[in-house]
Amino acid sequence: MGQKTIYIVGLGLIGSSLALGIRRDHPDYRILGYNRGEKSRRIALEQGFVDEATDDFAAFADRADIIILAVPIEQTIAFLEELATLPLKEKVLVTDAGSTKEAICQAAEKYLGPAGINFIGGHPMAGSHKTGAISADINLFENAYYIFTKTSRTQKDAIARLTDLFSGLHARFIEMDAQEHDRVTSQVSHFPHILASSLMNQAGEYALDHPFTNNFAAGGFRDMTRIVESEPGMWTSILMTNPEPVLERIAEFQSRLSHISNLLASRDTDAIWDFFDKGRRTRKEMEIHKRAGVDSFFDIFITIPDQEDVILQILELLRGISVVNIRINEENREDIDGILQITFKNKEDLDRAASVIRTKTSYPITIS
Amino acid sequence: MGQKTIYIVGLGLIGSSLALGIRRDHPDYRILGYNRGEKSRRIALEQGFVDEATDDFAAFADRADIIILAVPIEQTIAFLEELATLPLKEKVLVTDAGSTKEAICQAAEKYLGPAGINFIGGHPMAGSHKTGAISADINLFENAYYIFTKTSRTQKDAIARLTDLFSGLHARFIEMDAQEHDRVTSQVSHFPHILASSLMNQAGEYALDHPFTNNFAAGGFRDMTRIVESEPGMWTSILMTNPEPVLERIAEFQSRLSHISNLLASRDTDAIWDFFDKGRRTRKEMEIHKRAGVDSFFDIFITIPDQEDVILQILELLRGISVVNIRINEENREDIDGILQITFKNKEDLDRAASVIRTKTSYPITIS
Repeated sequence: MGQKTIYIVGLGLIGSSLALGIRRDHPDYRILGYNRGEKSRRIALEQGFVDEATDDFAAFADRADIIILAVPIEQTIAFLEELATLPLKEKVLVTDAGSTKEAICQAAEKYLGPAGINFIGGHPMAGSHKTGAISADINLFENAYYIFTKTSRTQKDAIARLTDLFSGLHARFIEMDAQEHDRVTSQVSHFPHILASSLMNQAGEYALDHPFTNNFAAGGFRDMTRIVESEPGMWTSILMTNPEPVLERIAEFQSRLSHISNLLASRDTDAIWDFFDKGRRTRKEMEIHKRAGVDSFFDIFITIPDQEDVILQILELLRGISVVNIRINEENREDIDGILQITFKNKEDLDRAASVIRTKTSYPITIS
Repeated sequence: MGQKTIYIVGLGLIGSSLALGIRRDHPDYRILGYNRGEKSRRIALEQGFVDEATDDFAAFADRADIIILAVPIEQTIAFLEELATLPLKEKVLVTDAGSTKEAICQAAEKYLGPAGINFIGGHPMAGSHKTGAISADINLFENAYYIFTKTSRTQKDAIARLTDLFSGLHARFIEMDAQEHDRVTSQVSHFPHILASSLMNQAGEYALDHPFTNNFAAGGFRDMTRIVESEPGMWTSILMTNPEPVLERIAEFQSRLSHISNLLASRDTDAIWDFFDKGRRTRKEMEIHKRAGVDSFFDIFITIPDQEDVILQILELLRGISVVNIRINEENREDIDGILQITFKNKEDLDRAASVIRTKTSYPITIS
């Protein structure tokens, strides 16, 4: 597509990783970067993620063929407003990387629409607790879903320009309505975060009068509350820019709790059993075992003896096979797992691993 | 304490593992076993977990100095009723292994009380997805909490007999009120299970109209719903024998959701931030990172490059240091983790591991 100039606004984990993906397939593109903080700006320059860097957002805007806003949601909206006041290339295309889409798309419509500036909302659905350019990872979005919003003003060729720009990410590009994106993420991410934090707060207060609450929390409780330690600011922004779908999920969930409460109050054993059984069947049908953003998820479950270096022994056998994840699930009576679970990226690796374990050890294995 | 005869009723994972623990410190004790199913009965005999086995509960009752009921809750209650009708040794002591305690203790009071039969409720707080005598594990209860209920009729010497009997489990014995046990477990286990199953059912129904719900479920959602795949029957029994504390937790949680709903409806950004921040701080204060049943939990977090055999390399460095758990948390933007987390059983192992990683690698580490 010829030499282009890309302006990445925000050189944190996301922006820097996007830069690496662009470099991979478009080494000839010129990449300009904005970052408020000096450290990531310096690292991005030193590492060559960007060719030039600034802490003045307006400085590079007029040189860009494509502008990628990779900053927090509120900042993204503020920059959209500012962009409308800046001199830009006539065919400039603007996109973003925010976790919610409708509020951002509405801001783009409001500020860029009148100026006829083309905008496509984007959400690369991957990330990390790690932050900053120092954590840039060209594989961060591999096999991850990368959402592009359909809007009334969306032109096919605009999305084509972005999928070409980001081809080096090896992500899975999906077009969907901004509203639908926000509804789905409210169900699988935003509302569950409220549930987890509420449960944590409830248990914390309960522990004041019932101290063993702190001791008896088992694997299930820990897993349910793990995300509670996320950074509060990001989640506040997410809720504030996606309130209606979240409010709707809360209300719907309230009615579910009331229903279960009634079943339990009336000691309806069969209905309670059906409730738990439905959840179990639903989870299996949802193939939730798959990692979000990965097309397929390949697990091997190995029943191992409780002795030293068994994991080491197994990984030695698997040397050269790329491991996506590994865990020993705690043995907890009310939990379901209790064996060494190793996850591979594809069926080939899984099959190789399974045959090695079968031939070289006597450990029972099952495959997901 | 001289030769004793122990009658273990139920030779599943729990009963068989208890038998192994008794054998370790009391090789001279005679262990009799009941199991309805033939397979676990045969395995328990073949493996020597028990000296004799029967499928007739009443058959061995009169020979036992101590009777351990390790069957489902309803069956435990049924056997308590039946015990009152059987000829038993005068000083027989009866205990159980059920997940809820008050209903069982009340049944014991009702059926055994009048006959003056001594009963102490028990809850060995460990387990596994594995079942049957085939899964018996002498280490299953190591460092796990083992609850003994205090009742009006409890005699110190009765609990002393049990802690002596089970000394080989290397468990952490705690005496607590049956009601308090059920309240605490309703908060950290029973109610959270309802939350997880409700979330799963909600998402499953949402997916019917919003199919991407199946695709976008990320690590946080998966962790929150993992326990949903547990066996429905056990959880139904737990709720049915602990309804009031669970109902109280549901109602209390409903008010929390209503509160958050109001904060969000009124766009109270600061209050929402405080809500998330409180959850994060509470979780850290609760040291929920500790594994339930383990006195202390020692984690090292290693930031590793995304390349093959890094875990292998690290475990080779840690050779000989016992690893309790290991995991790479998925990189998910809305999640908090994304580094190799290795858990050790004690501070010594953690310190050894940390110094090895520090000296032999350049990977950044943090220690919990």
